[in-house]
Amino acid sequence: MEIAILLYDGVTALDAIGPYEVLAATMKCNVKFVAKKKGLIQLDSKMGYLHADYTFSEVTSADILVVPGCSPPHYKTPMNDEATLDWIRQLHKTTKWTTSVCNGSLILSAAGLLNGVVATSHWCSFDILRSLGAIPTDERVVRQGKIVTAAGVSSGIDMALQLVAWELGENASKSAQLILEYDPQPPFDAGSPKKAPAALVKRIRRALQDFSNQEPNS
Amino acid sequence: MEIAILLYDGVTALDAIGPYEVLAATMKCNVKFVAKKKGLIQLDSKMGYLHADYTFSEVTSADILVVPGCSPPHYKTPMNDEATLDWIRQLHKTTKWTTSVCNGSLILSAAGLLNGVVATSHWCSFDILRSLGAIPTDERVVRQGKIVTAAGVSSGIDMALQLVAWELGENASKSAQLILEYDPQPPFDAGSPKKAPAALVKRIRRALQDFSNQEPNS
Repeated sequence: MEIAILLYDGVTALDAIGPYEVLAATMKCNVKFVAKKKGLIQLDSKMGYLHADYTFSEVTSADILVVPGCSPPHYKTPMNDEATLDWIRQLHKTTKWTTSVCNGSLILSAAGLLNGVVATSHWCSFDILRSLGAIPTDERVVRQGKIVTAAGVSSGIDMALQLVAWELGENASKSAQLILEYDPQPPFDAGSPKKAPAALVKRIRRALQDFSNQEPNS
Repeated sequence: MEIAILLYDGVTALDAIGPYEVLAATMKCNVKFVAKKKGLIQLDSKMGYLHADYTFSEVTSADILVVPGCSPPHYKTPMNDEATLDWIRQLHKTTKWTTSVCNGSLILSAAGLLNGVVATSHWCSFDILRSLGAIPTDERVVRQGKIVTAAGVSSGIDMALQLVAWELGENASKSAQLILEYDPQPPFDAGSPKKAPAALVKRIRRALQDFSNQEPNS
């Protein structure tokens, strides 16, 4: 299986690395990190880098396309870059699965792939997702035909385990889960806006909205 | 808070990126990716890279040290490299928390930090961990004084959320969890050897043991 993971400056590392690690653990996936230009890709935190090993012109098809998200407002750059959107549309024609993690679904929307499609995103991005023509839902992994969108950041791990189950079977998914020892035990149960304290939800929503009103790389 | 994450060729990306992402989400941590040499660090899958922005001589103290693991046999290189072990011992003198993810605990052991200490590792590495003088336990996150070891790969996320709770408080941990939307929903419950089908556990244990008998970079 050929996997293409889009990278762009400002990406959230775990959005990309979660699915990568699950798919790599199957030992049946060839994962390629792809960007407009090869080389270092600065993370949204500005505290590190991922690395794009391929350019768009070098990867013209894939079985699975993964579009990761980012801290706002970094999605604005790929959403407004025609070369990026063209590449997504081109790959989508060839994929078995076109997927996003977190607000990567905003980028899929900008490429025109989510018009009237039920989809998810980071819980703070539902208004923007709706304004782009998708129909937001707060499920963690949403499958609509061959388009699969996942909720915020860490949900890419769950999404990738689903993809592996659908594509390579239940045993392959369990095997990847066991190799990665994915037996989650967070110390608190605050991982969704339904479960976290209301004051915390409000504070984070406001902070991320403030970020989303900024310009990228400012 | 100053965080140092050790990188070395053959590292497992999620072992490093899980804790990084949690700590970065607090917006109170300055995370540095550190290796013997600056530059690209090849992942164990050989399908991508992380990037070391600092050398050992540039990072001589940290509040938290994170030693990630790798697919076997890649841990053998740092375990047999005196410069790496010296750096770990040096940083340990300065840390509030010295931590490992997955078989990163074998590297902590090689540095002499786990003699007679209760610790964990990837579930396939308990025999090696014991042979190095530690006392293996299958808890997901093990705290012994200021040494915290975590189980396989994905457990670094849970460990980092614990560290944030201990160091910055419960609200900071819940906040990071909510930002990362860490509300795990794996499709199966096969993430530990106690829960996965016995045949799968046996097969993966044998495969990883075969790998561990190889030489690194072969």
